[in-house]
Amino acid sequence: MSIPETYQRIVLAARPRGAVTADNFRLETVPVPQLADGQVLIRNHYLSLDPYMRGRMSAAKSYATSQQLNDTMIGGTVGQVIASRNAFYKVGEYVNGMLGWSEMGVSDGVLLRKLDTTRIPLSAFLGVVGMPGMAAWYGFNHIMEAAAGETVVVSAASGAVGSVVGQLARLRGCRVVGIAGGAEKCAYVVDELGFDACVDYKAGKLEADLAAATPDGVDAIFENVGGACLDASLARTNAFARIALCGLIAGYNGADMPIRNSRLLLINRLTVRGFIITEHMEYWQQGLQELAVLVANRQIKFRESVADGLAAAPEAFMGLLQGRNFGKQLVKLI
Amino acid sequence: MSIPETYQRIVLAARPRGAVTADNFRLETVPVPQLADGQVLIRNHYLSLDPYMRGRMSAAKSYATSQQLNDTMIGGTVGQVIASRNAFYKVGEYVNGMLGWSEMGVSDGVLLRKLDTTRIPLSAFLGVVGMPGMAAWYGFNHIMEAAAGETVVVSAASGAVGSVVGQLARLRGCRVVGIAGGAEKCAYVVDELGFDACVDYKAGKLEADLAAATPDGVDAIFENVGGACLDASLARTNAFARIALCGLIAGYNGADMPIRNSRLLLINRLTVRGFIITEHMEYWQQGLQELAVLVANRQIKFRESVADGLAAAPEAFMGLLQGRNFGKQLVKLI
Repeated sequence: MSIPETYQRIVLAARPRGAVTADNFRLETVPVPQLADGQVLIRNHYLSLDPYMRGRMSAAKSYATSQQLNDTMIGGTVGQVIASRNAFYKVGEYVNGMLGWSEMGVSDGVLLRKLDTTRIPLSAFLGVVGMPGMAAWYGFNHIMEAAAGETVVVSAASGAVGSVVGQLARLRGCRVVGIAGGAEKCAYVVDELGFDACVDYKAGKLEADLAAATPDGVDAIFENVGGACLDASLARTNAFARIALCGLIAGYNGADMPIRNSRLLLINRLTVRGFIITEHMEYWQQGLQELAVLVANRQIKFRESVADGLAAAPEAFMGLLQGRNFGKQLVKLI
Repeated sequence: MSIPETYQRIVLAARPRGAVTADNFRLETVPVPQLADGQVLIRNHYLSLDPYMRGRMSAAKSYATSQQLNDTMIGGTVGQVIASRNAFYKVGEYVNGMLGWSEMGVSDGVLLRKLDTTRIPLSAFLGVVGMPGMAAWYGFNHIMEAAAGETVVVSAASGAVGSVVGQLARLRGCRVVGIAGGAEKCAYVVDELGFDACVDYKAGKLEADLAAATPDGVDAIFENVGGACLDASLARTNAFARIALCGLIAGYNGADMPIRNSRLLLINRLTVRGFIITEHMEYWQQGLQELAVLVANRQIKFRESVADGLAAAPEAFMGLLQGRNFGKQLVKLI
C-alpha cells in the first residue's frame, strides 16, 4: 500500500469553559513517522466519538488522567495496517486501537485487537461489538442482573450503549422501557429495537409518562444521563432495584445535577454502582464474543450517525453531547 | 409474680406534620388481658427508641407499613415473663420482643428471643447485641467490606449503630473517623471508643475538618445522617469506595436532602447500598453471637441515655431525632 508523507490529526487546543466549542480543537498536518522495530502504522477508517471524551478535556479530577493540551484527542479507532515492523501484524489486517482523532497512528501492537470482519462490519467494532457494547453487557449482566419478567429502564435508549442494554434485556424476557429525546428516536427504540415502550423526555412530562410506562414499577435502571432523568427513574423503583451508573451526560458541561430522590435509596433498599468498562477487561473476551454472535445473527440491531472526514469531528462531538446524534456517533475517515 | 390489673401504654394519637411533637402521642391505662393458650405475659424492663420509628409515624410510603393511629407505638423491648401458658417460656425468663411503648405485652412466643444475661446486661440486647448492633455488623461486614489499613467514615458516630461500626472497623485495623455533634461526643468517640479521629459537624466546617482527618481519602462510609453529611464524606472517597446507607436522619422531618456530589458516584466508581437489617435475618445468629463475645470481653464498649418511666418516652424520642441523646436511647420501665 502507498504511504503518504503527511496526515491530519486534531489536538486539544484549549480546555472547555462550560460547553465545548470549536475553539477547543485544532486541526494539524503532521509528517508520517518512520517505524521503529516492533511498530505498525495504521490508517484509521473510523473514529469513535463517545461522551467520556468530555471528561478527558477538563483538567478537573475524573476517573482517567486528563487529556494533555496539544496532544491528539483521545479516541477509539478501527483501521487497517498499512506498514508493519511487527511480525504479528501484517499489512492489510484490520485492527481496533486507541489511536485518537487522527487519520493515522503508530502502535507497538500491545493495545491493538485484530478484527474479523467476515460477518461484522468494521464500524461495529467501535459500537455494539466494542467499548459501548461492553459497557452495556457488563452493566446489564453484572450490575442490573435483571431477570425475565422484571422491568428495566434505560436512558439514552437510542444511543450506542443504551440500545444494546435494552436489546439484551428484551432477549432475556424483561419488560424494557427506554428514555430518549424526541418522537423519532422513541419510535426507533420501540419499532426497530423492540423495546416495550419509550418515553420522550422532550415532551416535558417525564415523570408521568414514565409512571404510565412502568405499571409494575422498575427493578433495574441503566443510567447514562443523570439529573432529572435519574430522579424520574428512581421514583419508580421497586424494593431492591439495581442501578448501573454508566454516564452522567446531563452534567458534562458543569450543570448542577443533584439526586433529589436520595430517600428512595434507603426506603427501597437500592444498590447504585458506578463503573468504567475499561476496568473490567477480564470480561471483554466473553462479552465481545457474545455480542458478535448476536450481531451476526441480527438479534441485536444498531444504528450509526456518521460524520464525514476528520475535520467534521468537533462539530459531531458537540452534537453528541447535545443528543443530536442518532445511534453510535462515528467519523468516517476513509 | 404478682400481676397487676392494669398497665400503661403510649399510642400514636396523630401523625406528625414536620417535627414530632408531644401531641402525636397519648398515654393510656388499659387492663391486663387474660392469656389464651400458648401466650405469655411479659413485663417490659426497657423500651428501645430508634430513628426508624419516625418513618412508621408517617402515612407516606416507606419500607415498612405505617403505624396505625391509636395503636401502641411500635418498638423493641426487653423484659421478663411474668405469666405463661406457653411450655417453652417459663415465668422469670428474660426475653427480647417487639412489644412497643408499653409496660407490658402479650406474645404467642413466635417473635420472642430468650436472653442470657449472665455476662451481658439486659439493656444491651436493645443496643449493641440487638438490632442496632446487627445493623452495624451487617453494614460493616457485608457492604463496607473494609480491609485493614483502609479509611472508614461513620456518621452519628457516638450513637447506638455508629459506635459499633467504628469499633468493629478499629478491631479490623482500619483507620476510623467519626462524625458527631459537639465536642463532648467527639471526645467520647476518640477517647473511649478508640476512633482515630472524630469531626464535630456543629463546628461549622465539616468538609475541611473531614478532609484533614482523612489524608488518604475514604474507602468506606457508614451513613446514618444523609444530606450535607453524606456529601462531605462522598467528597473524600477513593476509587471503588463502598457506602452502606443505614439511615437518613437529617431528612426524617421532611427536610430536602439531595445528594449533590452525584458525579462522584461515577467518577470514583462508588457502590451505594441502602439496607434494612430486619430483612437479613439469616445473619442474626452469627452476628449477635460475635457481638455478644466482643461485648462480654469488653472489646466493644457502649453508652446509654436512659429516660425514666414510660411517660418520658415521647420527650426522649424527640431528643433522639435532634441528636440530644448520647449513645443508645432507652426508656427504663422498671
